[in-house]
Amino acid sequence: MKPLSGSRPPEHINIVPFVNVDNMMKLVLHVGIQTFLIELSSYIEADFLRWRHFDKSPRLASHSREGVIELMPTSDGQTYGFKYVNGHPKNTQHGLQTVTAFGVLADVGSGYPVLLSEMTILTALRTAATSAVAAKYLAPKGAKTMAIIGNGAQAEFQAIAFGALCNVRTLRLYDVDRQATDKCAKNLAGFGFEIEKCNSAQSAVEGAGIITTVTADKSYATILNDNMVGEGVHINAIGGDCPGKTELHRDILLRSDIFVEYAPQTRIEGEIQQLDKNHPVVELWEVITGAAGGRNNRRQITIFDSVGFATEDFSALRYIRDRLAGTRYFDELDMIADPDEPKDLFGMLLRAQTVS
Amino acid sequence: MKPLSGSRPPEHINIVPFVNVDNMMKLVLHVGIQTFLIELSSYIEADFLRWRHFDKSPRLASHSREGVIELMPTSDGQTYGFKYVNGHPKNTQHGLQTVTAFGVLADVGSGYPVLLSEMTILTALRTAATSAVAAKYLAPKGAKTMAIIGNGAQAEFQAIAFGALCNVRTLRLYDVDRQATDKCAKNLAGFGFEIEKCNSAQSAVEGAGIITTVTADKSYATILNDNMVGEGVHINAIGGDCPGKTELHRDILLRSDIFVEYAPQTRIEGEIQQLDKNHPVVELWEVITGAAGGRNNRRQITIFDSVGFATEDFSALRYIRDRLAGTRYFDELDMIADPDEPKDLFGMLLRAQTVS
Repeated sequence: MKPLSGSRPPEHINIVPFVNVDNMMKLVLHVGIQTFLIELSSYIEADFLRWRHFDKSPRLASHSREGVIELMPTSDGQTYGFKYVNGHPKNTQHGLQTVTAFGVLADVGSGYPVLLSEMTILTALRTAATSAVAAKYLAPKGAKTMAIIGNGAQAEFQAIAFGALCNVRTLRLYDVDRQATDKCAKNLAGFGFEIEKCNSAQSAVEGAGIITTVTADKSYATILNDNMVGEGVHINAIGGDCPGKTELHRDILLRSDIFVEYAPQTRIEGEIQQLDKNHPVVELWEVITGAAGGRNNRRQITIFDSVGFATEDFSALRYIRDRLAGTRYFDELDMIADPDEPKDLFGMLLRAQTVS
Repeated sequence: MKPLSGSRPPEHINIVPFVNVDNMMKLVLHVGIQTFLIELSSYIEADFLRWRHFDKSPRLASHSREGVIELMPTSDGQTYGFKYVNGHPKNTQHGLQTVTAFGVLADVGSGYPVLLSEMTILTALRTAATSAVAAKYLAPKGAKTMAIIGNGAQAEFQAIAFGALCNVRTLRLYDVDRQATDKCAKNLAGFGFEIEKCNSAQSAVEGAGIITTVTADKSYATILNDNMVGEGVHINAIGGDCPGKTELHRDILLRSDIFVEYAPQTRIEGEIQQLDKNHPVVELWEVITGAAGGRNNRRQITIFDSVGFATEDFSALRYIRDRLAGTRYFDELDMIADPDEPKDLFGMLLRAQTVS
């Protein structure tokens, strides 16, 4: 491995640019968090607009008692991407992240990888950017107040994205863990929000036109009861994202219009796993392309039942790849065996003897 | 990223050991190619013996006109592994490898990756080791001569594995590309084989108790005709490994006993895609555990219809991980975001501002 970062993309196809955690943070800060989220959301929106170009399938999940490990592949015919991601709610008890991830882009024509990137931070950013894209189409016009229920690792990213893309100015924070709320409020102090720390989910949602639920419990939890949700709000439901894990009472779903990323996956993992398999939902790309309506009246409750979909990770990796150009925020990994003569893999191995 | 290799596994769970191409070659040469194949085959055999412990599914394939990109995950409940692998037959026309790969092991309990490794070289080794394991149970007793039809990147690995594990002493090589045969013979010169370069597949199989077919064409090719295959031989069919790609005439299959890795995958990708969906096949683990018979008479034709299965990659990664201990053949990648307080991912990002 060449220890020095380069300022240009690698010249050799066997060398894969790798964005480690440190470089991802530097890249985000170099671009600016808000600008990064705005640019990232434009990539996500552009890929939703060409939804039909993508190979789509529900992610491949390996469930265990402790959590889940998933592979999320997709392709637009030119570029292939996948993300490895885990979800282990009890990890935080051991000082570990609930969700960690990394991802790869590859060239469909040759099958060679062209980017390896950390995606723990990038997933937090793309999840927030996707929520903000959905809210642009679904949230009530002029809503400036957002409740955030669940103030863990994803909360601040949601806040910044809604501030940057949806003009949210007031945040009402609640978490069963008061320290999480304090942390969230402190981290957001420099971003120009009016912040209220609330003592219950009930009080957090008061006056909020947008309600974001982003808790991490791996169970059927009821973060929002039916009587807590008034007319006209938009619910950005992030936390219910695997089988057996939901956040909203079923009755809320029944009186709302539900928007999802990719229905076959959301029916397995989202809030709508509580509903009949034929319950009508609208896919977000339909709203963005104009094939379906979004919010159509002031009293309507809209829910973005977000579970995260492979195209969003693809968009995020695509953005990172473009954004890396001209920067030094990557290392070069010698990942692909590259014999001088392609049929002579064994000869390359033999010849390594003489130089090692 | 720390540019220096360590001599111990990383102390921090956010740091993932990475075996690049150069280190994989050094590790293989350090262990010795034959010893490496023998040890690797013992891991593969051990995992076939505990076949029922594994989560198994056909690989997730993304097909394009140029080739295929696949993800091959599996888990034994303690450890999760997956391989990324492509297959692009025309790549060699552009000086690229037909097959390249990399893989990951992760801890099921936490979801954190514990190893990232190049697998282009490792796949060649595990494919050869798996073939040799199958032949130990299926090849005619005392067979010392193997024909190898297709003398590309995989050929020498097959030869060395059969030499080390099955006592093959004579190789009969044939390829439509004579230069490939010359390359193969030259690379194998120091390994103690008697080598004959043949002018046709027909002449290569003469007197061979084992026939290995390992060509790369992505089409229904007929590398072996029915009249070329005599009684009592073992056919190690490696090259037919994706939909639309086969090497053996259907009539050979009909008079042989067919052994596969994982029937649901092989029916899609292997030689048996030419047969009725209910055509009887035996899975290799059944033979290894004694649940089914292998070779039972001298006139029987046995076919190992190999397509490569996720457990073999898992075994290979498990072997590499064990073999790395005490060596310097890895780098340390900063792949996992690791905030001091797990819920404070955003705070970690903010604080990076002050140090960058």
